Amino acid sequence: MTRVINWPALSVSEQQAALARPKLADSAALGEQVRAIINTVRQQGDEALVAYSQQFDGLTANSLRLSVETKLAQLNKLLPERKAAIELAYDNIRKFHAAQLPRDIEVETSAGVMCQLRSRAIAAVGLYIPGGSAPLPSTVLMLGVPAQLAGCERIVLVTPPGKPEAGDIAPEILYAAELCGISEIYTIGGAQAIAALAYGTETIAKVDKIFGPGNRYVTEAKQQVSQDARGAQIDMPAGPSEVLVLADNSANPAFVAADLLSQAEHGPDSQVILVSDSTALIEAVQAEVASQLAQLPRKDIAAAALSHSRYILTADLAQAVAVTNAYAPEHLIVQTAADDELTAQFNSAASIFVGKWTPESAGDYASGTNHVLPTYGYSKTVSSLSLADFYRRFTVQTLTAQGMRNIGPAIVTLAEAESLDAHANAVRLRLAELNNVEG
Amino acid sequence: MTRVINWPALSVSEQQAALARPKLADSAALGEQVRAIINTVRQQGDEALVAYSQQFDGLTANSLRLSVETKLAQLNKLLPERKAAIELAYDNIRKFHAAQLPRDIEVETSAGVMCQLRSRAIAAVGLYIPGGSAPLPSTVLMLGVPAQLAGCERIVLVTPPGKPEAGDIAPEILYAAELCGISEIYTIGGAQAIAALAYGTETIAKVDKIFGPGNRYVTEAKQQVSQDARGAQIDMPAGPSEVLVLADNSANPAFVAADLLSQAEHGPDSQVILVSDSTALIEAVQAEVASQLAQLPRKDIAAAALSHSRYILTADLAQAVAVTNAYAPEHLIVQTAADDELTAQFNSAASIFVGKWTPESAGDYASGTNHVLPTYGYSKTVSSLSLADFYRRFTVQTLTAQGMRNIGPAIVTLAEAESLDAHANAVRLRLAELNNVEG
Ligand SMILES: [Zn+2]
Ligand SMILES: [Zn+2]
Repeated sequence: MTRVINWPALSVSEQQAALARPKLADSAALGEQVRAIINTVRQQGDEALVAYSQQFDGLTANSLRLSVETKLAQLNKLLPERKAAIELAYDNIRKFHAAQLPRDIEVETSAGVMCQLRSRAIAAVGLYIPGGSAPLPSTVLMLGVPAQLAGCERIVLVTPPGKPEAGDIAPEILYAAELCGISEIYTIGGAQAIAALAYGTETIAKVDKIFGPGNRYVTEAKQQVSQDARGAQIDMPAGPSEVLVLADNSANPAFVAADLLSQAEHGPDSQVILVSDSTALIEAVQAEVASQLAQLPRKDIAAAALSHSRYILTADLAQAVAVTNAYAPEHLIVQTAADDELTAQFNSAASIFVGKWTPESAGDYASGTNHVLPTYGYSKTVSSLSLADFYRRFTVQTLTAQGMRNIGPAIVTLAEAESLDAHANAVRLRLAELNNVEG
Repeated sequence: MTRVINWPALSVSEQQAALARPKLADSAALGEQVRAIINTVRQQGDEALVAYSQQFDGLTANSLRLSVETKLAQLNKLLPERKAAIELAYDNIRKFHAAQLPRDIEVETSAGVMCQLRSRAIAAVGLYIPGGSAPLPSTVLMLGVPAQLAGCERIVLVTPPGKPEAGDIAPEILYAAELCGISEIYTIGGAQAIAALAYGTETIAKVDKIFGPGNRYVTEAKQQVSQDARGAQIDMPAGPSEVLVLADNSANPAFVAADLLSQAEHGPDSQVILVSDSTALIEAVQAEVASQLAQLPRKDIAAAALSHSRYILTADLAQAVAVTNAYAPEHLIVQTAADDELTAQFNSAASIFVGKWTPESAGDYASGTNHVLPTYGYSKTVSSLSLADFYRRFTVQTLTAQGMRNIGPAIVTLAEAESLDAHANAVRLRLAELNNVEG
């Protein structure tokens, strides 16, 4: 049983240590390996993609683009219950993101000076959907729904080729993609897929921005291509997934334990923290975690994550809020007798789950919020993925002759103050022309 | 006189070469030098800041924080005409950015499932204002106004210490800061200032996000601290400033020339491009550029930029739009007989200046739009600086018992499809409790 951390007894530096995140492995070897893959894809194109799929995914053939026939054959395998669940999730995610549609703004700042802020969809986006032990249709929805709502011209989905045959992509993934109107699907994964999206190959045209989670090769490749102006932008920096549950003695220990275990089963590096002002609640949760863990198919993964989980006892709920704000968790679950009051005080969590009927699973799948969230403390500045991430904003200004008369003299004065005489001259010439016309 | 590029006569690769941007110097030496400065500031704090100011800015003393007395003494030197011009610019920038205030969103996606997207100001922001030959009050306004409107808890301004005495900060800068409610001002510049903002020192508390332009040391330092999760986020990637003017034979050649020269005087690496369907206009502009250039105080800088300027002749205006969209300019000025029709077709410029009365100077200073803009083709995906950049967005979800009943079964189905049994269990436990209560 994990030792309980008694918060008020810690020094400031011990408190910082208690909330410290694991140092991310900064592997030069990984960086070099990924750089080599990216360079090979840039030089050899499709040929490199096929070779890497053979090398890493053990396939003997790879047609890169998923054919309509293969897709339809896979879709036929979809269980009706799963189809309905994907549709419910799609509807809720769509409703929440549709409410975020940007509005263009127009302001006449001075008479004759019209300024606009316009939003337009990013033209071409690439969505990376990991393969691995289980398909992730939920991630397709989280990336595909906002791309569809924004109206991106091209929405490209890449996902590892599938087993045992290339093209054996899970029907859940393909159905989620279908709902999102995604028809351009390539069965490639790993750093090579990121390279193909960022730089293009004979078959795959380059995209402007890449979204989605992945293993450390994918994460490193996203990082590298985002540092190159000729590469592609990415959604956000990545780190291990996290939950912090803030619960008092009114909380149901079985629910809290189940929520901690949900996070723990994501991976051995998952960060799991319980903060409470109640020793009784912490002990009850610990007992529940032990008994629920024993039943889990993924208990080895969850146990690994739990081995570095933290149970923090605070003097009161105000201190629990302070701990939470200092940590800035990706997922914050609050189950107390004062949920609404506390929720107003959180200033750094990426997604907040309020009350006993709101497990993290709800946001992961079907409440409608986006499950692509900043981790590793980034939520102090980085936003949760939303519709805005699929748009670019730009400005348009139009001055009439009157507008030039109204603000021109101030522009000349400011340009002179900044010693930018050509800037001043561009206005002086125009003001002179206006005076000529008048005079 | 620069050779005119006849666009239709070029091959595709020649067209790409004609629009290519200069390769950014990727100097390992610069990277190492900046890394050393950052590490020294992290280790030695204030002492390092003072030492670097002495070394790079030639000062014998440095109090770091600008005192109220010094500020008031400097403000007394402000010319009334400049004060009024700064106020006009402040008002217009404020009006345009105030119209961008984010609204929180709440959607009931299924009965009993409330989802919110909330925006809150980033807590602490750092604004870098370059020193150099002339003060830049306009940049203070472009960064300070949105920070003030967002209501960031801390707004920190750093700027090089001033000459001949430390604290000789231009009154224009200090007055712009005063209007923006900025009282925390440090007289430090360079990579050491970025390090202090990102990591903090004894005197300067760390900020969450750093905004503003700077020389290559500042740019490199921003890049480095943004790559460290313990550092700080930054506004956007940097590159040389750019203008593309699209003009037809209805344009005034003197105005077009003045606009090209405005961009050219920013620096020798400024990118200056004219695209037109009219040989006569191009020739008239070239003649005007030559005669206006001779009058400019900064003619050496402008001439250096003009030496790599490009005059592109297209077959028609449609082709001129295509060239413009392919280039994705930071500033796009359009002066044609069909301005409105063309403006609707631009899909990649960061800020568009429409019509003969709208020089780039207007947006640089006083129209109200923000002059912090993506360069180097980044505007295809990166937004022009706006109020949103001073906020973080996060989500909040609350399910009632009814909400859990409505979407819980779909969550279980999806979690099972993704082999995440603990996620399913967190919902099963709750559904069981609801059945118990009912039964
Ligand atoms: Zn989860
Ligand atoms: Zn300018």
